[in-house]
Amino acid sequence: MKAKVYVTLKPGVLDPQGKAIRNSVGLMGYGGIADVRQGKYFEIALDESLGGERARETAERMAREVLANPVIEDYRVEIE
Amino acid sequence: MKAKVYVTLKPGVLDPQGKAIRNSVGLMGYGGIADVRQGKYFEIALDESLGGERARETAERMAREVLANPVIEDYRVEIE
Repeated sequence: MKAKVYVTLKPGVLDPQGKAIRNSVGLMGYGGIADVRQGKYFEIALDESLGGERARETAERMAREVLANPVIEDYRVEIE
Repeated sequence: MKAKVYVTLKPGVLDPQGKAIRNSVGLMGYGGIADVRQGKYFEIALDESLGGERARETAERMAREVLANPVIEDYRVEIE
């Protein structure tokens, strides 16, 4: 079983890395790029023995406690 | 218009950061975590004036040339 966790900065939080990418691609000649924001992405392989409910619970807890900083980041968990 | 770009290491490529996360959560008492792999995630805001076709083209090119290293990374682009 696989969980995908997406971690993004909350809307109000400055993202200097994203800004740097936007400026760079602007200088490289890409047109029409209004904004870039960078986040993190995790693929977690879970033992099949966990079962769907436990797997989601584990992935959600891991996202909240380990992978994201809930003060400045949002996260989203998908189970496949 | 928004493009989402997911960048992941190719399957054969070692991911020490992912391994470190897996070991840490193991020590923290999380059970059933077989593997963790870390990737990157980008949200790109594109000018509406680009239109769907041009927007996808721009995002794909940016993923290939700037955001991912095609030697060791795969990428996926979604347009919303």
